[in-house]
Amino acid sequence: MNKLTIIKVGGKIVEEEESLKQLLNDFSKIEGNKLLVHGGGRSATKLAERLGIENRMVNGRRITDKETLDVVTMVYGGLVNKNIVAKLQALGVNALGLTGADMNTIRSEKRPVKDIDYGYVGDVKEVNAAMLASLISQDVVPVLAPLTHDKQGNILNTNADTIAGETAKALAKLFDVSLVYCFEKNGVLRDENNDNSVIPQLEKADFERLMKENVIQGGMIPKLENAFESLDAGVKEVIITHASQISKESGTRVQLTVSSKLIF
Amino acid sequence: MNKLTIIKVGGKIVEEEESLKQLLNDFSKIEGNKLLVHGGGRSATKLAERLGIENRMVNGRRITDKETLDVVTMVYGGLVNKNIVAKLQALGVNALGLTGADMNTIRSEKRPVKDIDYGYVGDVKEVNAAMLASLISQDVVPVLAPLTHDKQGNILNTNADTIAGETAKALAKLFDVSLVYCFEKNGVLRDENNDNSVIPQLEKADFERLMKENVIQGGMIPKLENAFESLDAGVKEVIITHASQISKESGTRVQLTVSSKLIF
Repeated sequence: MNKLTIIKVGGKIVEEEESLKQLLNDFSKIEGNKLLVHGGGRSATKLAERLGIENRMVNGRRITDKETLDVVTMVYGGLVNKNIVAKLQALGVNALGLTGADMNTIRSEKRPVKDIDYGYVGDVKEVNAAMLASLISQDVVPVLAPLTHDKQGNILNTNADTIAGETAKALAKLFDVSLVYCFEKNGVLRDENNDNSVIPQLEKADFERLMKENVIQGGMIPKLENAFESLDAGVKEVIITHASQISKESGTRVQLTVSSKLIF
Repeated sequence: MNKLTIIKVGGKIVEEEESLKQLLNDFSKIEGNKLLVHGGGRSATKLAERLGIENRMVNGRRITDKETLDVVTMVYGGLVNKNIVAKLQALGVNALGLTGADMNTIRSEKRPVKDIDYGYVGDVKEVNAAMLASLISQDVVPVLAPLTHDKQGNILNTNADTIAGETAKALAKLFDVSLVYCFEKNGVLRDENNDNSVIPQLEKADFERLMKENVIQGGMIPKLENAFESLDAGVKEVIITHASQISKESGTRVQLTVSSKLIF
């Protein structure tokens, strides 16, 4: 199978002109098939504040009422996505910005209300792998915004790490997928205040232990859950690293177990 | 050649839920190849107002400073475009939202400063007709936002009527193009206060006379200039009509001259 590199960029990287420029420059140099997934939460928060819309977060997830949905649709689907696409085009990458609604790339369902009503948040149901593979085979580079749709006319807000994980899983049947989560830290850290405390290899058993010990917490938990799910579903490699290191051997390599590594 | 229907929808239609719903429903029923171009100026004006950004218009064109560019990128590329795409997907139309940056659909150049500095406004230089035709041949329905790019990393604001006209011209080499400008009026009116005063056929000589007599004025002038340019470039048919009448024989049919009509 052909190789496909999926880069997920989030955190402060996409919000700051210099770091984004560097990341896109590095991304443009990745050889072979590639796909970019971006976040944009900080910009959405800023726009909501300017509009007097309250930002409500639960476990790092945004409660998305109708007004907030409009904000994220503007910021993720418009401002962040289109600026990335324009910059990649300038770097010679034939980028195409996509939300889940475009060509039915990612269909989701509005999250059922249990303890918390997340509002217009979508849980991914189906990634249109055949369509993405067809675009990729035509040398198009998809740039996915963290928005999906329910195929009933509604845009839904969906976590970018989840988009990256689900897309990697769906495409793992068609490509040898490397999934790289990059952000402003050097990887998964033993001590969140020490950027040199990167855990070079993280297995599932370690993850569960470190979670219990509160070494791994916050937004890193769903990111790693996505990572392990992706590996379970056949993704070849998951790396969590600094945005300036996407093509280098650094950061944290996530793996199921040592023995499963030998099977590959 | 195959037929292609290009619908440009603007004015209040895209901003009001009911009229947009009706328009998209009618659009979904158009048989054969089709493409939609939308505006969104009123929503951009509203968002700018909420953000305390001054709206400056000259001859119906928006002066686009950096902040305003962000507003139109969010509103046209995000809010309006993605909601239309999601609604069309629900109607069974395989819509794909595109700005000029996406797959280099429309390249423009920043308008040179003469009497007026329009700011980040792009004059169309090249429409990627081959790429659009390839998408259309795969039953994809492009939905174009009024944004272009300069291939140097910058999004530029571009009038939606111009986008529709330039796209029609570029695709006229590959399809028999019908271009329909639809909005909240019944067509080109002799008396702007009387919606029953539609001019059923408008030739270039009439247009020039009616412009001198101030019967045709404002935003209708560039719209008709685009229309005549499109006809000159081989577009088969240009209609200006009410959004509720896009598939009916009504509104204003724009034509070069009676004799040129006979040549077809």
